[in-house]
Amino acid sequence: MDFTLSLDPNAAIPLHQQLYDELRRSILTGRLLPQQRIPSSRSLAKSLGISRTTVTQSYDRLLSEGYLETMRGSGTYVCSQLPDELLHSTPIQPLAKQPYPPIPLSQYGNDLAQAPFQLLKEPDQPICFRYGRPAFDRFPLKLWRRLLSRQSRTTGWMDYATDMQGYQPLREAIAQYLNRARAVQCTPEQVVITNGTQQALDLMMRLLIEPGDTIALEDPSYLSARRIFLSHGAKLLPVPVDEFGLQVERLTKQENKPIRLVYVTPSHQFPTGATLSLPRRLELLAWANQQNALILEDDYDSEYRYGDRPIPALQGLSQGQSVIYIGTFSKVLFPSLRIGYLVLPPNLVSVAVQAKWLSDRHLPILDQMVLTDFITEGHLESHIRKMRSYYDQNRQVLVQALRMHFGEQITILGEKAGLHLMVRLRTNLSDAEIVQFAAQAGVGVLLAQPHYLFPADRHELIFGYGELNPTQIQTGIAQLAQAIGFRTSDKAASSPNRQIFPLKAPYQPNFGVEIGHMECRRGNVAASKPDP
Amino acid sequence: MDFTLSLDPNAAIPLHQQLYDELRRSILTGRLLPQQRIPSSRSLAKSLGISRTTVTQSYDRLLSEGYLETMRGSGTYVCSQLPDELLHSTPIQPLAKQPYPPIPLSQYGNDLAQAPFQLLKEPDQPICFRYGRPAFDRFPLKLWRRLLSRQSRTTGWMDYATDMQGYQPLREAIAQYLNRARAVQCTPEQVVITNGTQQALDLMMRLLIEPGDTIALEDPSYLSARRIFLSHGAKLLPVPVDEFGLQVERLTKQENKPIRLVYVTPSHQFPTGATLSLPRRLELLAWANQQNALILEDDYDSEYRYGDRPIPALQGLSQGQSVIYIGTFSKVLFPSLRIGYLVLPPNLVSVAVQAKWLSDRHLPILDQMVLTDFITEGHLESHIRKMRSYYDQNRQVLVQALRMHFGEQITILGEKAGLHLMVRLRTNLSDAEIVQFAAQAGVGVLLAQPHYLFPADRHELIFGYGELNPTQIQTGIAQLAQAIGFRTSDKAASSPNRQIFPLKAPYQPNFGVEIGHMECRRGNVAASKPDP
Repeated sequence: MDFTLSLDPNAAIPLHQQLYDELRRSILTGRLLPQQRIPSSRSLAKSLGISRTTVTQSYDRLLSEGYLETMRGSGTYVCSQLPDELLHSTPIQPLAKQPYPPIPLSQYGNDLAQAPFQLLKEPDQPICFRYGRPAFDRFPLKLWRRLLSRQSRTTGWMDYATDMQGYQPLREAIAQYLNRARAVQCTPEQVVITNGTQQALDLMMRLLIEPGDTIALEDPSYLSARRIFLSHGAKLLPVPVDEFGLQVERLTKQENKPIRLVYVTPSHQFPTGATLSLPRRLELLAWANQQNALILEDDYDSEYRYGDRPIPALQGLSQGQSVIYIGTFSKVLFPSLRIGYLVLPPNLVSVAVQAKWLSDRHLPILDQMVLTDFITEGHLESHIRKMRSYYDQNRQVLVQALRMHFGEQITILGEKAGLHLMVRLRTNLSDAEIVQFAAQAGVGVLLAQPHYLFPADRHELIFGYGELNPTQIQTGIAQLAQAIGFRTSDKAASSPNRQIFPLKAPYQPNFGVEIGHMECRRGNVAASKPDP
Repeated sequence: MDFTLSLDPNAAIPLHQQLYDELRRSILTGRLLPQQRIPSSRSLAKSLGISRTTVTQSYDRLLSEGYLETMRGSGTYVCSQLPDELLHSTPIQPLAKQPYPPIPLSQYGNDLAQAPFQLLKEPDQPICFRYGRPAFDRFPLKLWRRLLSRQSRTTGWMDYATDMQGYQPLREAIAQYLNRARAVQCTPEQVVITNGTQQALDLMMRLLIEPGDTIALEDPSYLSARRIFLSHGAKLLPVPVDEFGLQVERLTKQENKPIRLVYVTPSHQFPTGATLSLPRRLELLAWANQQNALILEDDYDSEYRYGDRPIPALQGLSQGQSVIYIGTFSKVLFPSLRIGYLVLPPNLVSVAVQAKWLSDRHLPILDQMVLTDFITEGHLESHIRKMRSYYDQNRQVLVQALRMHFGEQITILGEKAGLHLMVRLRTNLSDAEIVQFAAQAGVGVLLAQPHYLFPADRHELIFGYGELNPTQIQTGIAQLAQAIGFRTSDKAASSPNRQIFPLKAPYQPNFGVEIGHMECRRGNVAASKPDP
């Protein structure tokens, strides 16, 4: 062969791979022509000063992939099937030397590409008050594995699903559970199984929202939900919350603005922890009926209520007409199970089932079978009962520790339910300083700030207490108080403004005012700057 | 109480539920007013002639849900928090009596709602030649369950994923496997884990396609892929296939039509089984580069090739620039695992990872861990080797049986790879008759017809041979021949037209000709009626 092969015996890539790459490139770029004979492995090995095995390895691969062919008794040739005009007109260059061509994206893709998001950085200190996490070490893992083992014994779970809506026995178990425990009024035919709350929200966006449609939502509210809304080009109308949850009258006064959807977390407002009062629930439902708006009820951790009497789900109050109910097993069982569900108004079921199937067909069937057993054999409700008293203990320890160490410096919010509570600090530290000083003292804390539509120092922390034990909680709060308590100035601590709700100044969301700092699209938040 | 309660002791609904419903409705409709005292359970039971337990059950539920409240020592009252003007202005009616209001949908939702699809009906005869299914009874289930048990012992798999792209060790294992076995050139950073091929396709549509964009695809082609394309409003440009796969020159002649994406199954064209030849691969890649079009390479069952030498994946030939490679474990392992993957051009990775996370966060981590072990411990490739020889045997038995029983009446296509082959029958039976007569003889067969863009009698059957054993295959084909062989007229059997490829008449896809019968949108297929 009259061309050089540049092999580097010191490179990380093995010689046979280098040789294969070089020969392949030579064929594809036309340096070696179709039907051209190539040297025998013996002579090439000799001329390159490498072992014959190395050459044979490369040849074998090129033969098996159709670049080379052998003719009986007459040696090895470049495959004749390669049309040479093609090879000459578009030589293929090695990957590294060619700049990647830009790929045109859809509007959805462009919006994502222009403002990529990253996951919130989770703390990794010795004691971390992460939220949204159950107590993994209290999960009945042995039992779960026994059910897993039992259901996986035969092959019945391995084929494609035949029920597009989700595993039928699971839908029945969920409907019964929701009727019993949450006063949700539904049949199994209204339940659609999803990959967690995330997919439930995304499916609803796909089916209900066109770019520019308005979604009203609590402010603060669940950041991940907001990201999904924004990725679909929705305009967001933030509505403030107080100790009774969403300030419904602020929403209902927006009468000349068409609002397509209202996203609420009525059982345990995220992250403030408020419970939407019954009068407000009824008011919200009446408004939605009148406006032909839909309510997205995200009931992410309603299973855990402490002392308080439960308030029926919006879905049950509405008799299922204008409410889309979203539930998940991420908090009562574990997040990586990836099973959630939608409870839909009857005439939204069919189209949602189709959208779910088109998105990804169905969830693994084995997990759905195991979860069904877990519910129908009574383990779910027994687990919830046990965990309720466990979390309640953690919660009391946390509240006590906070009161003891911070006293007048803090206000505790939303401690009556769920797996987290919120703390409003009276401090003149910045949010960044709070996190930094806490981290230095070995305590990971998370701010409420990212869940607000407008970035500002809020002096609010979300304390998850699901994962920790009482000792960790006590130690963590003591260390935190040492780290940030003494830095809080007397002035801040003694300031007369102890009023938490309602907010001081009127909070007036204005349509049309464009805010430039959002994660995705520009101009899709309709609100003026809120009160500090 | 001065109003009647209409309870029906003979109804299917238990009395306590009826009473609860009636009281709740009375409260919500204002028949019972806030702060109104209601009778004691004892006196109501007496006046209604039912047991006191029944009444207590209803009261307890209404109390726990906040409709009633008790005042110490003075009885039970309707909750005072209910704002009565609200209750009067929007009385809530019982579900059955109220028509469901229509729910306005997005364009995507409307398209789905207007032309809902259903799953292809699968046969359920004693012997069914279903395709797309591996041999479940040959799966190393014990081994899989051992890995499952090993990985689930601790709680490390239960939390949310921290890697948005998919479990890192799995991405590494897949990249290595693809390099080894499929000549796919990629790093783990180009791999995105998805819920099977279905989600991979849907994500690509979301990121790359706007309604009205044109997607070229093989005709016939995979029905489920087509449904996804149509659901995104794509215009479809069908390109015929022959024994070398997609007729690339028919595609490349469409030079003045902007084609965004080409969807191909080059390893084993679905359903004809053709393998795209190397010259055509190179021609397709050159065209895509020149047009700045992308190629979607769906490599659904390429692991199984019999005798033939493999041809490298388009992705590897292109050096990953214009090819999106889609793989799945549904065929080599099992479908309900719901794990597939995308291998992406480097500058499409970031946005795809974001879209995947927004869609449903991530897959269950335990399954990804088990699959990683299965690959890295060598079980995957050993399983594929074993199954290749098993399927090869089935395939040979099937081909032999078909030749023996049908002889000149059939042509066998695409038998050199995969888990199915296609049979073109020379018959004057209609497609419906073929299926019907086969079913009557206890044999389930599936038509190729739904995978074509244009409905017509094709006399083509797809025979899956993954699930059956040799005896079932022989018996099934013998019974099938009895059922439909003798009904095939002499005229059809002796007709001189034995030519399979190329198709008789020129197949001219015309842009702008609108076809009205598609599943989803109107007018999104750009082609004239093809040859019969």
